[in-house]
Amino acid sequence: MTGSAPSAPLSVPPGSAPNNATYDPLFQAALDGLHADGSYRYFAELERRAGNFPQAFHHGAGRDVTVWCSNDYLGMGQHPLVQAAMHKALDETGAGAGGTRNISGTHHYHVELEKELAALHGKESALLFNSGYLSNWVTLGTIAGRLKDCVVLSDALNHASMIEGIRHSRAEKRIFRHNDLQDLERHLKELPPDVPKIIAFESVYSMDGDIAPIEEICDLADKYGAMTYLDEVHAVGMYGAQGGGIAQERGLEHRLTVIEGTLGKGFGVVGGYIAASRALCDFVRSFGSGFIFSTALPPMIAAGVLASVRHLRASATEREGQKRAVAYLRRRLDEAGLPYIDSPSHIVPVMVGDAKTCRALSDELLTRFGHYLQPINYPTVPRGTERLRLTPGPLHTEAQIDDLVAALATLWREKGLALRPAA
Amino acid sequence: MTGSAPSAPLSVPPGSAPNNATYDPLFQAALDGLHADGSYRYFAELERRAGNFPQAFHHGAGRDVTVWCSNDYLGMGQHPLVQAAMHKALDETGAGAGGTRNISGTHHYHVELEKELAALHGKESALLFNSGYLSNWVTLGTIAGRLKDCVVLSDALNHASMIEGIRHSRAEKRIFRHNDLQDLERHLKELPPDVPKIIAFESVYSMDGDIAPIEEICDLADKYGAMTYLDEVHAVGMYGAQGGGIAQERGLEHRLTVIEGTLGKGFGVVGGYIAASRALCDFVRSFGSGFIFSTALPPMIAAGVLASVRHLRASATEREGQKRAVAYLRRRLDEAGLPYIDSPSHIVPVMVGDAKTCRALSDELLTRFGHYLQPINYPTVPRGTERLRLTPGPLHTEAQIDDLVAALATLWREKGLALRPAA
Ligand SMILES: Cc1ncc(COP(=O)(O)O)c(C=O)c1O
Ligand SMILES: Cc1ncc(COP(=O)(O)O)c(C=O)c1O
Repeated sequence: MTGSAPSAPLSVPPGSAPNNATYDPLFQAALDGLHADGSYRYFAELERRAGNFPQAFHHGAGRDVTVWCSNDYLGMGQHPLVQAAMHKALDETGAGAGGTRNISGTHHYHVELEKELAALHGKESALLFNSGYLSNWVTLGTIAGRLKDCVVLSDALNHASMIEGIRHSRAEKRIFRHNDLQDLERHLKELPPDVPKIIAFESVYSMDGDIAPIEEICDLADKYGAMTYLDEVHAVGMYGAQGGGIAQERGLEHRLTVIEGTLGKGFGVVGGYIAASRALCDFVRSFGSGFIFSTALPPMIAAGVLASVRHLRASATEREGQKRAVAYLRRRLDEAGLPYIDSPSHIVPVMVGDAKTCRALSDELLTRFGHYLQPINYPTVPRGTERLRLTPGPLHTEAQIDDLVAALATLWREKGLALRPAA
Repeated sequence: MTGSAPSAPLSVPPGSAPNNATYDPLFQAALDGLHADGSYRYFAELERRAGNFPQAFHHGAGRDVTVWCSNDYLGMGQHPLVQAAMHKALDETGAGAGGTRNISGTHHYHVELEKELAALHGKESALLFNSGYLSNWVTLGTIAGRLKDCVVLSDALNHASMIEGIRHSRAEKRIFRHNDLQDLERHLKELPPDVPKIIAFESVYSMDGDIAPIEEICDLADKYGAMTYLDEVHAVGMYGAQGGGIAQERGLEHRLTVIEGTLGKGFGVVGGYIAASRALCDFVRSFGSGFIFSTALPPMIAAGVLASVRHLRASATEREGQKRAVAYLRRRLDEAGLPYIDSPSHIVPVMVGDAKTCRALSDELLTRFGHYLQPINYPTVPRGTERLRLTPGPLHTEAQIDDLVAALATLWREKGLALRPAA
C-alpha cells in the first residue's frame, strides 16, 4: 500500500479573487476526477456482531454477509478474554484517558502494556501510539528529522504512514526496489559513510503477502552502519512462537533497531507501537510532537490490548487455525483453477487485473452471494493488478470457504474470466 | 501549546562510520539535554477510578489524589450513559473495527456519529479521525498541500498538530501575532488576491484560556477570500447551547469553513473530527493519507462518543456545574491573593514563572497534600510563564477546591512567593 490517491490539480483561476464559494467547487472537481476513473471510495456500512465474526450485517446490501477482507486477522476483536478485560477496565477507569500521556493521561494499563510489548519483541522498551499510522509517522518523522543529514532508504512498496513520516522529516529519501538487496546495497554504497542511515521496510507486505529478506537487510545494515526500521503491522500476533512477528519467527529481533506494530489487526483492537532501545523510545517519547501533544488511548483500550497480547503470546491456537484456513482456501482455489498469488503469508490476493471487473465481482459477491470483499484498486495497487484480497482466519469455517470459492467460480464462468488449469 | 521540544543537535562525528552502537548515544545525549534544563518529562502513572473522578490513585506518590489537570473537563469519561453505551457496543460489536474505513472498518456507529457531529455544528458533513491531533494534521496537510499555491495564515499560538499539518503540506505559512487582527490583515493584504488562503486558529487557547475574535477573523476572511479553519478542541462540549463550542455560542458556525474538535476532552473518550461542507469532508476522506490508511476507531468508542455528544447537546447541567466550579475556584484564589490569569474560559492558569519552582510546587502538592497538577513548563509555554494549569469541572466539590487553595496558600507562604493583594 504505497501512498494516497494522486492529486487532481486544484487551482484557483489566475486573476480571479477566491471567496468561500470558490473552494468547494475545487474540492468537488477533484472528487469528480475520482468518480470518472472509478477510484472513488464508497464505504460499506457494517454491523459487526461480536460472537458471530466473520459474519456481519451489511447496511448497503441489507443482509448478513461473511467478511473476507477484515484485518482482525485472528478474530481477537471478539475474543472473550479481550472483551472481559475491556468491560472490567471500563468499569474501573471509565471511557477515556482524560489527557496527554504527560498531563494526567498515563494510566497503569498504558505502562503495563508498554512493558508487555517490549517483552514480546525482546526489546528494552516500547512506546504506544493511537494508531500504527501514527507510530510510523511520528517515529520516522522524529528520528530522521532530528538526526543531522540522515538518509532514509525506503522500500518501494512501503506503507503510506512510513512515506509520510519520511516526507515529514525532510530527510533525504532513497527508494530501493521492492525487496531488492542489490538495489539497496547500491544505494548504501553511494552514500558517504559518516551520514546516519535508516533502512525502512516491512516484513509481510499487505497487498501481495510477500515477505522481506530481513536477515540479509540486517547484514547490509551492519555492513554500512544503518539503523533498521521494520514495520511488522501485518505479522504481529500471527508469526513467531509468541506472535512477535516474522523477526521473532526467524530469530532476528535483536538485529532490528526498531520493530513497529499495530494493535488494530492481529491483536484486534486499535493503536500502534514501536519496540526498541530505551534511549530510542525515550527520544521519540520526548521529541515526537504527534506523541506528546495528543490525548492518550483510553486505559480500557490498553487493557483490552494487554489481554490480547498476553493471550497470543501463550496460545498458538489462533495462529494454527489461521494457517489451516489459509491452506484450505488455497487448496480450494487451486481445485477451482482460480488465479491468486501464492504468497508465503496469510494473505491470499485473488487477481482480477481490471478495476471495473473487480468492482463488479465484489458487488455480485455481496448482493447475490453474501460475501463481502472490498475490491482493491488503484492507487492502493498498481493498475492492471486489481484484486480481491482475502484474509481467511481461524473463524472462517470450511463451509464458508467452500461457499465463497463456489461463488467465485460461478462469477468467473459467467464473466468469462481466465482460469488456471485446475489442480 | 506551540510545538514540540527544541532539537538537540544529533550529529554523527564527521569522518566516522556510524554503526548501530552509534545511534543510541546520540538519542541519549538529546535526552541528557532535557534533563539538564529541567524539561525532561516524567509521566505520572495514575489509576483513574470511574465513579470517583476527579479522584485517582497515583502510583508514584502511592496515594489517592485529586486530579486538577485533566482535560476530561466535564467528567464525561465516567458518565453512566457513556459507559453503558460502550458496554453495550462492546458486547454487540466487539473490541475493534477490524479495518480501515474503506476496507471493512466502517461501522454503523461511525456513520451515526458523523451525522451527529455534523448536526452539532450545523454543517453538512463531518469526518472522524483517531485523534484530534490527526484531524488537524490530516485536514490541514491535505487541503493546504493540494490547493495550488495555498498560503496558510496561522495564529502564533496554534497547537502543534496544526503546525505539523501545515509543515506537512509544504504550503507557504504566514504566522500572525496571537489574536491580532491588524497583523492578520497586514498579511492578507500582502498576498496576491488570487492565491487560495486558509486562516487557521483556535477558539479557546489551552494554556492562557483566552478566546479568539472569531467574528472579526471571519470578516477578514470574507474580505480577502480566505477559508477559515477553527480548532475548537478546548471548547466542544462546553460552550454553546448544545456544546457546539464558542462558534455556536456566538452564532458563527455558518461562517467557518472548517470546525475541528476532539472527542477526548469535553466529550471524555478519544478521537477527533472535522465538520464542514460535504465536498470538503469528502475531499479529505478521499485524499487524506492519514485518514485513508489507518484502522478506524473501534465502533464501541464511536458508540460511547455518540452517547456523550447526544447527552451534552441536550443537557446543560455539566456546563453549568463547570462554570460554578470555575467561578468558585477563582473567588477562593482571589481571597487567598494567589496569582492567576483571569481568562474568559474555564481554564485557570496559576502563574509561577519559574520551571524549578513550578516543579517543586507540583511535587509538594502531590506528596504532602494529595493534589495532582502537572507543572507546565517550557517548551509548552514560554520561559518565565511557567504555571500550574487548573481545569476545575462539575465534579470538583467546593470542599476539594477549598482544600487545594489552602494547600497553594501554604506553599506560597512557605516558599515566599509573591501574592496579590487579597480580594
Ligand atoms: C504496513 C502498514 N503499516 C501501518 C499501518 C497503519 O496501522 P494502523 O491501521 O494501526 O493505523 C497499516 C495499515 O493500516 C499498514 O498496512
Ligand atoms: C488546541 C488543540 N488541538 C488539538 C489537540 C489534539 O487533540 P487530541 O488530544 O484529541 O489528539 C489538542 C490537545 O491535545 C489541543 O490542545
